[in-house]
Amino acid sequence: MAIEPFDTVDLIRTKRSGDALGTAEIDWLVDAYTRGYVEDPQMAALAMAIFLNGMERREIKDLTLAMIASGERMSFDALGKTTVDKHSTGGVGDKITLPLAPLVASFGVAVPQLSGRGLGHTGGTLDKLESIPGWQAALSNSRLLEILDDVGAVICAAGSGLAPADKKLYALRDITGTVECIPLIASSIMSKKIAEGTGALVLDVKFGSGAFMPTYEASKELAQTMVDLGNDAGVATSALLTDMEVPLGLTIGNALEVRESVEVLEGGGPADVVELTVALATEMLTLAGLPDADPAAALADGRAMDTWRRMIAAQGGDPGAALPVAREQHVVTAPESGVLVSQEALPFGVAAWRLGAGRARAQDPVQAGAGIELHVKPGDTVTEGQPLWTLHTDEPDRFDRALESLDGAWAIGPADSAAAVRGPIVRERITG
Amino acid sequence: MAIEPFDTVDLIRTKRSGDALGTAEIDWLVDAYTRGYVEDPQMAALAMAIFLNGMERREIKDLTLAMIASGERMSFDALGKTTVDKHSTGGVGDKITLPLAPLVASFGVAVPQLSGRGLGHTGGTLDKLESIPGWQAALSNSRLLEILDDVGAVICAAGSGLAPADKKLYALRDITGTVECIPLIASSIMSKKIAEGTGALVLDVKFGSGAFMPTYEASKELAQTMVDLGNDAGVATSALLTDMEVPLGLTIGNALEVRESVEVLEGGGPADVVELTVALATEMLTLAGLPDADPAAALADGRAMDTWRRMIAAQGGDPGAALPVAREQHVVTAPESGVLVSQEALPFGVAAWRLGAGRARAQDPVQAGAGIELHVKPGDTVTEGQPLWTLHTDEPDRFDRALESLDGAWAIGPADSAAAVRGPIVRERITG
Repeated sequence: MAIEPFDTVDLIRTKRSGDALGTAEIDWLVDAYTRGYVEDPQMAALAMAIFLNGMERREIKDLTLAMIASGERMSFDALGKTTVDKHSTGGVGDKITLPLAPLVASFGVAVPQLSGRGLGHTGGTLDKLESIPGWQAALSNSRLLEILDDVGAVICAAGSGLAPADKKLYALRDITGTVECIPLIASSIMSKKIAEGTGALVLDVKFGSGAFMPTYEASKELAQTMVDLGNDAGVATSALLTDMEVPLGLTIGNALEVRESVEVLEGGGPADVVELTVALATEMLTLAGLPDADPAAALADGRAMDTWRRMIAAQGGDPGAALPVAREQHVVTAPESGVLVSQEALPFGVAAWRLGAGRARAQDPVQAGAGIELHVKPGDTVTEGQPLWTLHTDEPDRFDRALESLDGAWAIGPADSAAAVRGPIVRERITG
Repeated sequence: MAIEPFDTVDLIRTKRSGDALGTAEIDWLVDAYTRGYVEDPQMAALAMAIFLNGMERREIKDLTLAMIASGERMSFDALGKTTVDKHSTGGVGDKITLPLAPLVASFGVAVPQLSGRGLGHTGGTLDKLESIPGWQAALSNSRLLEILDDVGAVICAAGSGLAPADKKLYALRDITGTVECIPLIASSIMSKKIAEGTGALVLDVKFGSGAFMPTYEASKELAQTMVDLGNDAGVATSALLTDMEVPLGLTIGNALEVRESVEVLEGGGPADVVELTVALATEMLTLAGLPDADPAAALADGRAMDTWRRMIAAQGGDPGAALPVAREQHVVTAPESGVLVSQEALPFGVAAWRLGAGRARAQDPVQAGAGIELHVKPGDTVTEGQPLWTLHTDEPDRFDRALESLDGAWAIGPADSAAAVRGPIVRERITG
């Protein structure tokens, strides 16, 4: 057995005391954890100490680089195109990647969106696209490069060789109450994104009831930490802080969100989805050296839609095929007239999840057609008896628990209610 | 699979936020951990959260009672004698249990001393007694009761069925940097002691360089926490706060400490060992309802020695047999004349351990004869060239690393040095 340069318990004690770990110490910890010398309980105790005592900017950078070094690192250098990537911290009804990737690619920029599946109340981009008949998430690296070269946009599953230390630590944090911790979230997201080899990165960091972090301040700190981390590691990174108090758009659920994304690509779609798609596209195109590009025009004139069709077809999907529809519907109607004054993202996300749109465990299947259509949003006038939302599922015994989640999650107020007025969806821009 | 009443991650989050866990929550956690539903990484994260955020007195009591409930509980009710037990938090040269148990038993009180083996720089009582030819640590419960009835004192290995949750948690804390935490230390010690069924308990809580806790204040807090815990659980408990800045007595090591214990039982022995033995005996006899007993007299007139001989013989040992002696000795002499002004317990304990008196891993053997004899103590006058201490081991290649540990651990000063003056060994008495 090789002699180890550090003692695991000593390093846990350092962080327990609130002191900073050195670069060599963090490198060793991540490597020793990846090969199993540092054990799960030890990493769990360390994660809790990091949760409660924090990490310096230099430590977070060291942790990120060590997790990148634990696996393979992709490169798009051979492509001869600028690459730019987007990452969202996850929200309810957040289908933005679907219109955004082909929109940005329609300007000649390569957009390799390596994505994941959903777990809990936030949906997964791959789950959404898999509701398109024939579409396949898995691609070889060579095919990925081919599509990037030809179409410009790819949304596919991330390879399992990227940042294995992060995968191990992420699964551990999930069961040990150490998820909502900025140094650990930031290093987890950024290690994967940097290992994916992108040249530039735009982060969509959510705040509000449907977001990962509880407060605006925490979301802003997370955004700034990740932007600093990206720039420190040589990836041009910026972030938009965006509103996730209410669900994004008018649909929550896999096929329902694909349908809405196609509406946006056709030049229509809900105002908030269009607003956020254009804002993120502008940010990505600016980092790619095209600050004067006009993404709204590319949505209006069909260029983005053309790229979407080619992107879907390149992965075996039929962009013209009818999307799956759930077997059962249940409509919730307004009990009184007035204005919709609230619609909390989290319980709506949970309700869609309970209808079958999401999964509780990684191995569970999802229903393509399940979810919620919203007929009104906060600020809209409603008349007693009018449909507020339609719940979709293949299994009608799921309606009760979904309706339970919606109970108290929305309210109708007097017509002049100030609570119904919402600010712009993009609240702040964070740069290095 | 049965439905569990609590979610492990929710409970970790509660303690992470600094809130108190409820009684039912703690009961469930300990039970679910014992049966493996709560996993080691989850308990490690919780232990770190307890380390950093603390526990209320009620939580510590709940944790202790839940760990007792995880296993069997002994009872000496059938004995018809008052039982009283002593526990030391561990120190260097701490052989007090050996003279103390027969001394107290010589007054007709039953003393069931369920003890452990040493790990690290503090020696184990069972390791010491095992240097006596023929002596056996393992006893059946019925034999234990027989000896208690007949002789009155037993020092033996604790059964493996007592507080299994504590055993599991203790091993976990050892590798996760969560050892030096008062709620966890107090509940660990007290769960074992209460499960052992004693009617009264005296705690010897050490402070100073050779002690478990770093400061006098921390040792005092630990003592008060354990005393409260014992009394809350219906066991009459008190504690003495005792000095562990310097090694106790003039010997460190298994057979060496047995020899010194026999000297005390013969009415001789080093003043500090006698002082502490008598103080603890007085405290134990007071809790047993004999406040006027005179333990010093029982040492002087051979009553304690008689009980010792019967106690050793009852477990197969020959109290008259010669004790093992190490094959090699190395004498350290005074480099100058003056007064010994310091002699730090921890490095002397580490040196004895490196000579073979202790073990690094639970499965390692120990040498019966290894250890250190001290010829002088702080305050003693020394003359250049006189022996200061003799190192004993069977393996002479161990001397170098032992001497390394002693380097800088002691000093000789001018004859009038105030640093050489030490206070009384028992510094404070803690009651409920």
